[in-house]
Amino acid sequence: MQPAPCDLLVTADILLTQNARRDVIENAAVAIQGGRILMVGPAEKIEPSVAPAERLDLGPCLLAPALANAHTHASMTLLRGLGDDLALMDWLKNCIWPVEMQFTPEIVELGAMLACAEMIQSGVGSFIDGYMFETHVGAAVDRCGMRAVLGEGFFAFPSPHFKTAADAWDCFRNLKDHFKNHPRISIAITPHAAFSTSPEILRESFELACNMGVPWQIHAAESKAETASCLKQFGLRPIPYLHSLGVLSERTVLHHVVDATTAEIECIAASGAKVSHNPESNMKLSSGASPVDRLLRAGVIVGLGTDGAASNNSLSMLSAMKFAALLAKLRSEDPCALPAQQVLDMATINACRCIYPLKAPEAVPGAIEPDRPADLAAFRLDDPALQPVHHPVSNLVYAGGRAQAALTMVDGEVLYRDGAFTRIDLPSLLSEVKKSIAWVRKLQGNAASA
Amino acid sequence: MQPAPCDLLVTADILLTQNARRDVIENAAVAIQGGRILMVGPAEKIEPSVAPAERLDLGPCLLAPALANAHTHASMTLLRGLGDDLALMDWLKNCIWPVEMQFTPEIVELGAMLACAEMIQSGVGSFIDGYMFETHVGAAVDRCGMRAVLGEGFFAFPSPHFKTAADAWDCFRNLKDHFKNHPRISIAITPHAAFSTSPEILRESFELACNMGVPWQIHAAESKAETASCLKQFGLRPIPYLHSLGVLSERTVLHHVVDATTAEIECIAASGAKVSHNPESNMKLSSGASPVDRLLRAGVIVGLGTDGAASNNSLSMLSAMKFAALLAKLRSEDPCALPAQQVLDMATINACRCIYPLKAPEAVPGAIEPDRPADLAAFRLDDPALQPVHHPVSNLVYAGGRAQAALTMVDGEVLYRDGAFTRIDLPSLLSEVKKSIAWVRKLQGNAASA
Repeated sequence: MQPAPCDLLVTADILLTQNARRDVIENAAVAIQGGRILMVGPAEKIEPSVAPAERLDLGPCLLAPALANAHTHASMTLLRGLGDDLALMDWLKNCIWPVEMQFTPEIVELGAMLACAEMIQSGVGSFIDGYMFETHVGAAVDRCGMRAVLGEGFFAFPSPHFKTAADAWDCFRNLKDHFKNHPRISIAITPHAAFSTSPEILRESFELACNMGVPWQIHAAESKAETASCLKQFGLRPIPYLHSLGVLSERTVLHHVVDATTAEIECIAASGAKVSHNPESNMKLSSGASPVDRLLRAGVIVGLGTDGAASNNSLSMLSAMKFAALLAKLRSEDPCALPAQQVLDMATINACRCIYPLKAPEAVPGAIEPDRPADLAAFRLDDPALQPVHHPVSNLVYAGGRAQAALTMVDGEVLYRDGAFTRIDLPSLLSEVKKSIAWVRKLQGNAASA
Repeated sequence: MQPAPCDLLVTADILLTQNARRDVIENAAVAIQGGRILMVGPAEKIEPSVAPAERLDLGPCLLAPALANAHTHASMTLLRGLGDDLALMDWLKNCIWPVEMQFTPEIVELGAMLACAEMIQSGVGSFIDGYMFETHVGAAVDRCGMRAVLGEGFFAFPSPHFKTAADAWDCFRNLKDHFKNHPRISIAITPHAAFSTSPEILRESFELACNMGVPWQIHAAESKAETASCLKQFGLRPIPYLHSLGVLSERTVLHHVVDATTAEIECIAASGAKVSHNPESNMKLSSGASPVDRLLRAGVIVGLGTDGAASNNSLSMLSAMKFAALLAKLRSEDPCALPAQQVLDMATINACRCIYPLKAPEAVPGAIEPDRPADLAAFRLDDPALQPVHHPVSNLVYAGGRAQAALTMVDGEVLYRDGAFTRIDLPSLLSEVKKSIAWVRKLQGNAASA
C-alpha cells in the first residue's frame, strides 16, 4: 500500500492517547494532516504508513492531548495579585469590579494576550472565556493561534460594554457574526450569575442561545453566600432556581457547583448540563470544596478550569490538576478519590466537552484519535521532577509543571516549543503589560476615592 | 571610606529581605563575603561601599532567601508515583515499606541525589531529612552543595540498617562523627513515630539527642488513624503521649500535627517544639488539614515541607507554598487566613528554624541580612505567569513555579543558574535513575509474592 501523505509526523517516547481505553503508547507516532489527527500508534507501525512533509522528533517527552481550560476570565491576568485574601463578594464588589468597570477594549485585549501566552506555555490549547469586550479577547486568540469560546458577560445592571439587555443581545449577534467561520473561535451566551441577573434576562438569554445554536454558561452554586443570596432574592437555591427557569440543558455549562445537594447533583446530571471545577479559586476564596467525585459518579461531565488569574492566581492547568486530585481526597476523606487518570480526563476530554457542549463528543479536541483536531502538548521527561517514570499519568498530574512543557500545538500548528513562542512577541507583550501596572493602580485609586 | 572587599555582588530588580520588617527593596544589591551576607540594600547605596571580586547581575528577577524544606525523605524520590491513591497505613505497610526494606546504601544515595537536583532547581537551599543509610544521603548533599540535617530513622522493629536500638545509637554517633565540622551537614535523632516505636526508645533517644546536642524529630499527630493507634497502644493521644515522655522541647521538631486539639496546640507552643506543615502530603493521603493558622497564632514556629516524593509527589516548595495558603483558607473558611507573606515566612525563616531548632534564630539562613549564610534563590519576573507584578510576594506564592527559578545559591556558591547545575552531571544522574526503575519494580514484585 502507498504511504499516505501528511503534513507532519510527531514522535515521542510515551504518548497518552486519552482514547476510550486510555491507551498509553511507548515509542509513539502521530501523523497530522490538515490540522487533524490522521493516524496514531507505535512509531514502528505508523512510520511505514505515512509520507510526512515534516517531522518533529520529541524524544524523551510525554506527548498528550493539549490541556483545555473549562473556565477562565483571560483578561483578568492584568489584575493578578490585586486584592488577595478577601471573601468572594467583598473581593468582587470592592476590589475587582470598580477597576474592571473602567477597563477599555485595548486593555482587555492586552490582558487576554498575556493569558494566552501563560496558557500556551503550560500546554493549554483551548479555553472558554467569560468577560467583556470579547471581540477583543477574540482578536488576541486569533493572533496567538489558540482555540477559544468567547463569552460576553452580562448582569442585570449595565456593563462597561452595554446599558440594557437588548443592547447585550445585539452585541452577542455581532460577536457571532464577527467570528463566523473562524476555524478556532466561537461564542457562548454568558450571564454572570443568578444573584447578579434576573429571571427574565436569564430566560431570554437562554432562548437566544437556543436560537443562535450556541452554549449558555453561568457561575452557579459557587459558595454558601451565593446560595443565601439566591434564596433571599428568588426563594430557591441556585440549582433549583436555574432548573425552574428551564435553563439547565445539554447546552448549559455551570461554573463551580460547590454548594450542591445530592438532589441537585441528580438534577444537573438529568439535564445534561456540564460543570467546570475550579479548585484553586474555590480554595483561595474559601468558597468550599466541590463534590466533584459525586458529580462524576452521577454521570455529569466535569471539566477542570483555572478561573481568572485574579482569584487563583495562575492559569496553569498542571497546577489545577494537582489541586483537583488532592482537594477531592481531602474533602471525601478518601485517598482513593479522583485518581490521576480521572483528573487528566477532566483537564482534557471533559474540559473540551465543557468548551464545546453542543459538538459531538468524538469531534472535540482532548484525545489523540483519528479525525480529532490536532491539539497536542508535550512535557519533557528527562527532568529530575518527573523521574523516575513508574506511572506517566501520575507524574504529569502530581509532579508536572510548566517547567517541563516542551510543545503546544493547536490545529496542527506549533504555537510554542522549548521556551519559544511562534506567534507571540514576548518582549513586546511584557513591555506593554508592565506599562499597564501604573494604569491599573490609578484605576484602583480612583475607585477607592469615589 | 575604603570600599570593603567581597567575593561577590549580586544585583536584582526586586529583593525580598525576609528581615524583621519584611523589607522589599527595588534595584537591590547583596554583597557576599566568605559564604555570608556582608551587606544588603539599594544598589546605589551598596555599590560604592564594596569592591567585589565577582558580580552577578540578575536583572528582572525577584531575589529572595533560598527556600528551605522542613520535612522530606529525599531518597523516596525513587518511589515517585509508586502506589498513589492509598490510605496512609495501607500505603506504608503494603506498598512503601516492603520495597524500602530492601533498599541498599547505593540506591539511597542515588535517590537523595535526584531529590537534591529537584530541590536545587526549584530554589531550595536546605532541608531536614528522615530516612536510612543517612551517611549516603549526606554524601549526595556534600557533592551537590546543599545544606542538610540528616535524620537516620528508627522504629521499635529492625530497619535495613540496624537490628536493635543500641545498634541505632552507635549509628547516630558514627553519623555525627562522619560529618563532624562539615560546613553544611549536621544530624538529628529521628524516631519514626509514636505508633512505630516504644516509650523506652523514645525516652532513650531523646536523652541521646540532649547528650549529643542535636535536634530530635518525629512524625506526630499526622492523622486520626495515628491518634486512634496511639490511644490504643499507650492510652494517650500523640501530643499528650510525647509530652508525658518529656520529649517536647526546643530541640523537638514535630512533623505534620494535623490532628491536634486547642490544648495540644498550647502544649506544643509552651514546650518550644517546632512544627513542619506538609499540606500536599496531608491532602493526598486524606490525613486532614493541619490547623496551621492556629499553631502560628499560638506562637509555634511552623515551617513548610514537601514530605517525600512518594506521598506528594513533588519536592517543589513553590507548589507547597500555594497549597499551604489555599488549604488554610479552605479549612478555616476564612479567605484572609495565612496570607502570602506568612506562607513565604514558613518556607524561609520558619523552615530554617525547623531545620536548625538549636541555632540562634539570627544565625540560620532564611533571610537576607548581614552575617546570615548566603543562601539565595532568584525567580525570573519577565515571564507571563509572573506578570504584572502588583505584589511580588503574592506572585511568588500564588503564581510562582520551577519554570521561573533562575538561581540557587548556598553558602555563597552558585549551585544552579538558568537551567544549568554547577555540581550535578544531570544526564548521568538521570541515566542512573532510569536504571533504577526495573530494579524497584522487581523489589515490588518480590514483596507482592512474599
